[in-house]
Amino acid sequence: MTNALTQSPKTTLKQIRERASYDRDLAYEILDEGLLCHVGFTVDKEVFVVPMSYARDVDNLLLHGSIASRMLKTLANGLDICVSVTHLDGLVLARSVFSHSMNYRSLMIFGKAELVLDSNEKMLALKKFTDQILPGRWDDARQPTEKELAATSVLTMPIQEASIKTRSGPPSDLKKDLDLPVWAGVLPIQSCIQAPIADPAQSQNTPLPDYMEKQLT
Amino acid sequence: MTNALTQSPKTTLKQIRERASYDRDLAYEILDEGLLCHVGFTVDKEVFVVPMSYARDVDNLLLHGSIASRMLKTLANGLDICVSVTHLDGLVLARSVFSHSMNYRSLMIFGKAELVLDSNEKMLALKKFTDQILPGRWDDARQPTEKELAATSVLTMPIQEASIKTRSGPPSDLKKDLDLPVWAGVLPIQSCIQAPIADPAQSQNTPLPDYMEKQLT
Repeated sequence: MTNALTQSPKTTLKQIRERASYDRDLAYEILDEGLLCHVGFTVDKEVFVVPMSYARDVDNLLLHGSIASRMLKTLANGLDICVSVTHLDGLVLARSVFSHSMNYRSLMIFGKAELVLDSNEKMLALKKFTDQILPGRWDDARQPTEKELAATSVLTMPIQEASIKTRSGPPSDLKKDLDLPVWAGVLPIQSCIQAPIADPAQSQNTPLPDYMEKQLT
Repeated sequence: MTNALTQSPKTTLKQIRERASYDRDLAYEILDEGLLCHVGFTVDKEVFVVPMSYARDVDNLLLHGSIASRMLKTLANGLDICVSVTHLDGLVLARSVFSHSMNYRSLMIFGKAELVLDSNEKMLALKKFTDQILPGRWDDARQPTEKELAATSVLTMPIQEASIKTRSGPPSDLKKDLDLPVWAGVLPIQSCIQAPIADPAQSQNTPLPDYMEKQLT
């Protein structure tokens, strides 16, 4: 269990109808499949939940933004944050309204974020962000200049105190409802990439790169 | 402007590279298109960000869960919460790594949630939830019994102190990068409903209802 996430009072689920997990591999699967997290933090007793992109660097979660960002400065200030990543996998349509549900995989990470100060580490972090968006993109796009690197803040937080909550599978109707003449089952939901829209400022001869074609099929 | 959302220090965006809005119609469009929100709150100085389903009832946001849920009891206790709903609309692939971005529409609502106590209002709220998942479902599924209604907590919060942040359109590369031989543009992302998976416990003769077929096309 050395590899497991840390179960603490904060990460212990109070309800067990749905499945809790502290499995690190599952946590990474959830993270690697996503692009968007919701970051919660409190400033002057006011709570904020802000959507941000993220990347994973081995056992750490990376966040980034402009060096001018007040929010990033706040986050780097050693305050406790909670980062949630959720995939909605399906609508669970039961025979009874009461048993309707959703299939999902949700990860919640607690901790403090720290500024990455070393330039090489920052550059590696930007590579992680770019490849989280689209694997292969880093090698194709123009890489950051020193000035651009200096204008970017990167934050890192350990993926350690964390918990996973999931629901999957068919509806759980009451036995007495099973014979009702109502269609029951799951409508799976997926995040789909649609046909690329070239930048109107794009020169006409730039072909769609191979690594993007792969993503589209 | 009486219909606008309330701009407050909390909802005033600090950065203006991306577009801020306080337009109520846009807020409702974002809410009505979604199913999942992230609810932030603080308990004993610890911040939590929890994914929840929601529904909109005119100018109020509805949340619900089991009456046994500690979290719902906490939320109903008059503490300040922040609810975020975010749609990731596309990956913005610029010629330079630095100009990579995401297209999105994000709504953040601040306020306090209150328990809905009246049974009729609770029943109407459950209808809203069911129809937020799938319009038409409420009239088809078995509706809640009094016991089921009593086992459900419904919370309501006004959609008033809120802000929207969006990005749309092509990448914004530096002029000097425009002629680089790198494909640039947007990969649109959509939430797609896949082919329905019938409950294995489903009786064989239950057809897919019309309102579901509509959702699938």
